[in-house]
Amino acid sequence: MTYVQDDNIIFVGNKPVMNYVLAVVTQFTNGAKEVSVKARGKAISRAVDTTEIALGRFLQNVEKISITTSTEQVDTENGKTNVSSIEIVLGLKQDTTQVPA
Amino acid sequence: MTYVQDDNIIFVGNKPVMNYVLAVVTQFTNGAKEVSVKARGKAISRAVDTTEIALGRFLQNVEKISITTSTEQVDTENGKTNVSSIEIVLGLKQDTTQVPA
Repeated sequence: MTYVQDDNIIFVGNKPVMNYVLAVVTQFTNGAKEVSVKARGKAISRAVDTTEIALGRFLQNVEKISITTSTEQVDTENGKTNVSSIEIVLGLKQDTTQVPA
Repeated sequence: MTYVQDDNIIFVGNKPVMNYVLAVVTQFTNGAKEVSVKARGKAISRAVDTTEIALGRFLQNVEKISITTSTEQVDTENGKTNVSSIEIVLGLKQDTTQVPA
């Protein structure tokens, strides 16, 4: 699964959104305290869908910690071009004293 | 222009991104202190593009104040469905003592 990396970053691309939702849920299930969801270009919408579905349906004890957007330079056949990117950082809620098993 | 409303909200839809960039720039040029850029579904990527281009190329004295994502219920022919949304609030930088004419 190329969209999961060691340091709890999920790169959202062109696969169905539930693939990425599952990746996020799996990271937290495996003990991650924070997961970063990243995307560029048109996949930005899917990254937002991923976090909304993951938090709304599956991870009641997780919240959005930060959302940042930026512009990245990428190399293409026709030279460098700019592409928008987003990073949504998710983390366990601080006030969660009872986590559902 | 249906995507510009009285209260400084730009609704980003399916038009070319520069239409919305121009709308944002125009609002600040006309004296707005804050402008809210909103989008739903696939247009979310274009909303991020809009703010990145507006701030990167045209509005050096404007910054992102907040970025929030949420889930909205919309009515369709087949009943209610959920759609992701984003709101990016832009505002004049506080520390800007000299604004380019």
